[in-house]
Amino acid sequence: MKKNIYRERLRSLRKKMKAQGLDTVWIIQPENRRYLSGFKAADFDLTESSGSLLINDRQAYLLTDSRYTIEAEKEAEHFKVLTFKRSPFDLFPEVLAKLKTKTLGFEQEFITLALFRQLQKKVQACSPPVRLTALKRLPEQMREVKDWEEIKQMTRASEIMSHILAKAIKKLKPGCTEMELARDIEAWALKAGADELAFPSIIASGPNSALPHATPSGRKIRAGEPIVFDVGVKWNGYCCDMTRTVFIGEPRPKFKKIYNVVRRAQLAGLAALRAGAKNSEPDKQARRIIQAAGFGDFFGHGLGHGVGLATHELPYLSSRDKPSVLGQGMVVTVEPGIYIPGEGGVRLEDMVVITKQGCEILTRDRHYYDFS
Amino acid sequence: MKKNIYRERLRSLRKKMKAQGLDTVWIIQPENRRYLSGFKAADFDLTESSGSLLINDRQAYLLTDSRYTIEAEKEAEHFKVLTFKRSPFDLFPEVLAKLKTKTLGFEQEFITLALFRQLQKKVQACSPPVRLTALKRLPEQMREVKDWEEIKQMTRASEIMSHILAKAIKKLKPGCTEMELARDIEAWALKAGADELAFPSIIASGPNSALPHATPSGRKIRAGEPIVFDVGVKWNGYCCDMTRTVFIGEPRPKFKKIYNVVRRAQLAGLAALRAGAKNSEPDKQARRIIQAAGFGDFFGHGLGHGVGLATHELPYLSSRDKPSVLGQGMVVTVEPGIYIPGEGGVRLEDMVVITKQGCEILTRDRHYYDFS
Repeated sequence: MKKNIYRERLRSLRKKMKAQGLDTVWIIQPENRRYLSGFKAADFDLTESSGSLLINDRQAYLLTDSRYTIEAEKEAEHFKVLTFKRSPFDLFPEVLAKLKTKTLGFEQEFITLALFRQLQKKVQACSPPVRLTALKRLPEQMREVKDWEEIKQMTRASEIMSHILAKAIKKLKPGCTEMELARDIEAWALKAGADELAFPSIIASGPNSALPHATPSGRKIRAGEPIVFDVGVKWNGYCCDMTRTVFIGEPRPKFKKIYNVVRRAQLAGLAALRAGAKNSEPDKQARRIIQAAGFGDFFGHGLGHGVGLATHELPYLSSRDKPSVLGQGMVVTVEPGIYIPGEGGVRLEDMVVITKQGCEILTRDRHYYDFS
Repeated sequence: MKKNIYRERLRSLRKKMKAQGLDTVWIIQPENRRYLSGFKAADFDLTESSGSLLINDRQAYLLTDSRYTIEAEKEAEHFKVLTFKRSPFDLFPEVLAKLKTKTLGFEQEFITLALFRQLQKKVQACSPPVRLTALKRLPEQMREVKDWEEIKQMTRASEIMSHILAKAIKKLKPGCTEMELARDIEAWALKAGADELAFPSIIASGPNSALPHATPSGRKIRAGEPIVFDVGVKWNGYCCDMTRTVFIGEPRPKFKKIYNVVRRAQLAGLAALRAGAKNSEPDKQARRIIQAAGFGDFFGHGLGHGVGLATHELPYLSSRDKPSVLGQGMVVTVEPGIYIPGEGGVRLEDMVVITKQGCEILTRDRHYYDFS
């Protein structure tokens, strides 16, 4: 990734900070942190952070512990790296004084209540006092629109995933288990050079395909039943997310019908995507088709979500989420599904970049049926 | 896993709730949720929960959305499953009234500030009013001591990992890259039937081995330099975590010395483990050896951590953490390291069960050198 991308992002962040009256922000959410600094380390878990950023209009610090100092210095070129022993808060009085912080923005959607209480205690002890204010997804909103470098990584992730999925579908035969298929796919993804899976693969056959978030089981797949593959890899930190539903041989007429409805809904959703559209519009269009076909009660989730450094991120394509307007360069999934409990389900998902006039599909695998 | 284990756990939780004056608890942290209910689903991320539990002294509810209803009903035998459309909070007034909740315990180390504010708003609207109180790691403390069923899963995870590690070490030769090794290990783990990796593998060679949390790179490994393998898989939800440092051919005298110091520190740490010992004692014993050898400044992290459904959990073996007493059936790692920036590092890690008299090693791979 070109180094000046991070300078660009810092500049853009600072502009938005100024507009919101924030002089300093504290960034600890891993994807936000990577996006703004280039520091790639993941967090071990919620209570084991690998580092955080303190940024004002002129200076940028990365606070980490000795496990990560060397990587942080290498990766976060525009940041001054400071190493703490026990807690980043130990460095707060010194750094906030240097930054002349009066108002500190923090990520209320990420920090835990326990961490917030520590933060509160720490800044209350600062002199002059520091006021805390919630950031309201400022970095997440920046991440919505992808730059060319990000699109490149996501295109590559999608190519790898499409290739592997095609390989898996080719190998499909009655009697192999969901788990075997999941493991083949995962092993191939790693061999192909992916960073890791973007999320645990969903391979769900027969009645299991009625579970939108099924875990691969030891169930043997059979001819004629729906087999849902919902899979994704990460490439240089960027995720891909795609779903195909396939059959060995002929499906039952009911599932032919369901498949067609889902496919039409997906195409309607894709057709409704363009810069300037409301984020609820594609869901509305796709849902209308599923409802008209009588399956409205069997499509329980939203139409799609943003993808980037995280598999699920802003924007969400659903009428249940906060209204927003879609913009050029956003990357989203379009994934309607119909799930009949006890029988099976069909979901079809592509990941696309939104353009001025419409969208461009990144997940180019064409394993689609036409049962009409 | 035997079904009555969950009944046992609920009974134990209720006893502890009573002792703390809590009539109801809300459990949303994924490992706590799985531990108490058997519901296996992971969370997509922090803001996309797959479900939560509301438990009082007599009743137990699992709140989820339509994506997970079927699995939840199958897996969480002792819970009544309720499905919500938008948010679990929609069900709170009804369920809290049924539970006659007066004081609701919540996980302040897990819930985000944004979620806490929603929770606050919701319970304030309840009548009669509900008081919120932080759970203070109650379920986490229950998880510290493993039962026989859990030890069985962790033993199996360790056997698989030991076997794979031995295979990788056998295959080692100059010129293969860290990333190739990491991918082989990951692919073998999945093929062997592991659920997934317990954490991203660390394969760090030469100067990279000085980074305790290195990410596998394209660096080609060379004879004579330290190569750190820190790897783990999950088996039926339970993690294994182990580290070996290996060399192709003879290491430089300096690294022979470092290796010996780390190994002696590890053995000292292991020797200090037993039920009834302070959690800081093994770290103290191991650190003393590293300090005496003049490398005190190069061992920046704690000696070890608990392992279970999470790779890192209570108890922590370190003098920096909250003092506690080790108990029989706790599973911990013992992993001292010495890291010389720019040159390389050595870390050795075993995962053990604490017994009355000492401990039993689960990670039985014996790729240890004796350079003395």
